[in-house]
Amino acid sequence: MNYRMIGNVIGKVLWVEAAFLLPALLLSALRGEQNAAWGCAAAILACLLVGLPLGLQKPRRRDIYARDGMVTAGFTWLAVSLFGALPFFISGAMPNFFDCFFETASGFTTTGATILSDVEALPRGLLYWRSFTHWLGGMGVLVFLLILNPLANGASGESMHLLRAESPGVRITKLVPRMRNSAGILYRIYIVLTALMFLFLMLGGNTLFDSVTLAFGTAGTGGFAVRNDSAASYSAYTQWVITVFMFLFSVNFNIYFLLLLRQFKKAVQNEELRGFAAIVLIATAAIMMNTRQYFSSFWESLRHVSFQVLTILSTSGFATVNFDLWPQFSRSVMLLLMFIGACAGSTGGGLKVVRVQLLAKAAFRSVHRAIHPNAVHLIHSDGEIVDDRTVQTVGAYFAVYCAIVAAATVMVSVDGFSFETNFSAAVSCMNNVGPGLGAVGAVENYGGFSNFSKLVLTLTMLIGRLEIYPMLVLFFPSVWKK
Amino acid sequence: MNYRMIGNVIGKVLWVEAAFLLPALLLSALRGEQNAAWGCAAAILACLLVGLPLGLQKPRRRDIYARDGMVTAGFTWLAVSLFGALPFFISGAMPNFFDCFFETASGFTTTGATILSDVEALPRGLLYWRSFTHWLGGMGVLVFLLILNPLANGASGESMHLLRAESPGVRITKLVPRMRNSAGILYRIYIVLTALMFLFLMLGGNTLFDSVTLAFGTAGTGGFAVRNDSAASYSAYTQWVITVFMFLFSVNFNIYFLLLLRQFKKAVQNEELRGFAAIVLIATAAIMMNTRQYFSSFWESLRHVSFQVLTILSTSGFATVNFDLWPQFSRSVMLLLMFIGACAGSTGGGLKVVRVQLLAKAAFRSVHRAIHPNAVHLIHSDGEIVDDRTVQTVGAYFAVYCAIVAAATVMVSVDGFSFETNFSAAVSCMNNVGPGLGAVGAVENYGGFSNFSKLVLTLTMLIGRLEIYPMLVLFFPSVWKK
Repeated sequence: MNYRMIGNVIGKVLWVEAAFLLPALLLSALRGEQNAAWGCAAAILACLLVGLPLGLQKPRRRDIYARDGMVTAGFTWLAVSLFGALPFFISGAMPNFFDCFFETASGFTTTGATILSDVEALPRGLLYWRSFTHWLGGMGVLVFLLILNPLANGASGESMHLLRAESPGVRITKLVPRMRNSAGILYRIYIVLTALMFLFLMLGGNTLFDSVTLAFGTAGTGGFAVRNDSAASYSAYTQWVITVFMFLFSVNFNIYFLLLLRQFKKAVQNEELRGFAAIVLIATAAIMMNTRQYFSSFWESLRHVSFQVLTILSTSGFATVNFDLWPQFSRSVMLLLMFIGACAGSTGGGLKVVRVQLLAKAAFRSVHRAIHPNAVHLIHSDGEIVDDRTVQTVGAYFAVYCAIVAAATVMVSVDGFSFETNFSAAVSCMNNVGPGLGAVGAVENYGGFSNFSKLVLTLTMLIGRLEIYPMLVLFFPSVWKK
Repeated sequence: MNYRMIGNVIGKVLWVEAAFLLPALLLSALRGEQNAAWGCAAAILACLLVGLPLGLQKPRRRDIYARDGMVTAGFTWLAVSLFGALPFFISGAMPNFFDCFFETASGFTTTGATILSDVEALPRGLLYWRSFTHWLGGMGVLVFLLILNPLANGASGESMHLLRAESPGVRITKLVPRMRNSAGILYRIYIVLTALMFLFLMLGGNTLFDSVTLAFGTAGTGGFAVRNDSAASYSAYTQWVITVFMFLFSVNFNIYFLLLLRQFKKAVQNEELRGFAAIVLIATAAIMMNTRQYFSSFWESLRHVSFQVLTILSTSGFATVNFDLWPQFSRSVMLLLMFIGACAGSTGGGLKVVRVQLLAKAAFRSVHRAIHPNAVHLIHSDGEIVDDRTVQTVGAYFAVYCAIVAAATVMVSVDGFSFETNFSAAVSCMNNVGPGLGAVGAVENYGGFSNFSKLVLTLTMLIGRLEIYPMLVLFFPSVWKK
């Protein structure tokens, strides 16, 4: 293992974090939020104190293998969450460090689960930082670093291992031959879409602060809001803007690249995109039928239900109404949607639509094989044959995924909440959604859990965001062998 | 598809059912239970009216392919459940036919979920029949038929497809070259073990009726009891006997064959057996720790906790205490145990220990592959390499399994029960356990569900018992194509 190189990367990530804390410091200082400003300043200092020696040391070798990539991603995400928690802790806004760690990991992983019951009591500078973590975490902090600072001067193998460890999806597609350039294109699309949303929100009469934080929270599919009622008190126009952009940020960003290349047909025919759209439509229709009596008009129902469906599927986790009060059928459907999540290669979490599709195809094949044991039955995706190893990997991923959800559910059950609360909390954190059902429902928060459970759920969020392996390998003895 | 042959098999299965209804008729008549006697007589008549023409017609060809085997098993189990429900319905003991169908399918699938709140009110003849369905369903009704009536005069290919469709497990092992003889050996072991348990129960001072029904319910790992308090009011000795035999009936019957062949070492080294024993020990220890304050002594705790752990793991579903009142941690562990179930090749249900082990090995391999992408990593089971197709099949099975549990949960949620109730009901029926949590907890019953939900759960039990495919293929258009 190339420890020096891993340290080097983590160090530089901390520089990036320090740089991104500056606007929060500035905003706090300008608004006279003394404690918040001191918190931000101290966090910047801590990032530099640890980051400078790590990032300035010259590694002897610059090679990074798959294993190193995993370990680097795992430690990087632990580090940014721990250092990013300092402003909340040092400012005194959240006196319990477990809460600060939970909240910051929830931000970076774009979960959006909060332990705060009164969000509005937080200083503006910290609210800004809290929402910004969504934006940075959505696309990835390592991806960002690699655009600024290519590690291997042209050779993209090293960067590839790092990106693979951080980026969601079954297979990482290179858009252009050089990985760094691919990452750059994706980030540019991300910035343009975020700016577009910001513009639409400003046009709707929202304040600068609301527009910025809502855009950050939606772009990262995070779900932290700056109002206690989440998105309920925004105008219908604003809610529609959020709904549309939650859809757009749930789509694989490669689709936008295809659009830029004017390959419209290929973009529209994408199986995952079609599957995602179908799930949105069916779930919205089913829940609208089931919740007829809760809304006074068709359009009101359409607005709230499509918002809630997309906020869960995109794994954002905003709320305009409390879906925990809906009939049991709708609540169960919402819980099911949490598992599915968004498309691979988007900022959304969950199992990802493409994995669900592959699992469904493998399941269908197993039925077919039971009927025709000797028939050859290949699995296709977007017209190409999916090799057996990928099918196997997705199956194994699903097994680990279920095991982690089960383990988290059992572990947090020591606090004595209902099964519904524990299970939905584990599912919601694993899929980076945010709200669950019951005591962690849309208008509730995670503050009632013990420190132990908060830590379990924090790790679950990180495991979910990094798609399991980069966090899991840290606990594998064979990783640490020479 | 060989429709005539399928009809022939189903017809003969109905003869078997008619024959096994005779003792229930006799018991009812002897005890003067008029309605029950008429119910049994009418059911026998119905079995013969439908079974004789079907079973007596001579099929032109006697060949049965995998597809036919599946379809036969699916229809056979629907048929025995429907005809077996007649005594309850015609006697008037359960006026709603959905209840009768649920109760009988619950019996044959060895689920043991009941819609009755007052079991003791049922006539003895019907209680006997209800418990007997467990015994016949545990080892399999097609298996039984094939021992009496070899379909293909020596060639075992046809029988193999039928047995494979009905028997649980990843791979069906032939004990001896001829399948019919293998089935005969397994049934003989089953009868001897049941007789042994009956003897131990009689020695403990239980009545003949209690001993017979408890032995049937335990041997099939079903869980129907003849007392309203399930197994709570039996003596500690009787409870221990049940516990020990729940363990014995959860073990792969091939192990007993190995013991008969004096291959003790091979039997003891069986990975699945060791895994099962480990799960029993760990779960018992964890729950005993967690429920310390519920019991007055270590031995009382050991007796009740090991009973409850084994009743869930073996998927029997008896109860000596109400585990629904235990702390949330223990309840969550119990729910987790429902998924695992017993060993393959036993009468127990669930995912089966061997599948859980293979999933865990595949999951472990996927982590290993993430660290060492190019390393060769073969999966072994009992010293042999498991081929990739088997690993894939188990992964796909798990995906279909989860999809069915999710679908059943969402469907029964229309009744408005809590998520905990709906989910645990779906899990419990899919794994043929019996009790769940909440409104379907150990001292509750399924009577509160609507007819729609009862039908959904009935089908879920049948899907679970036949390990999905034989039931699922009935809904596959490609099965019905020429």
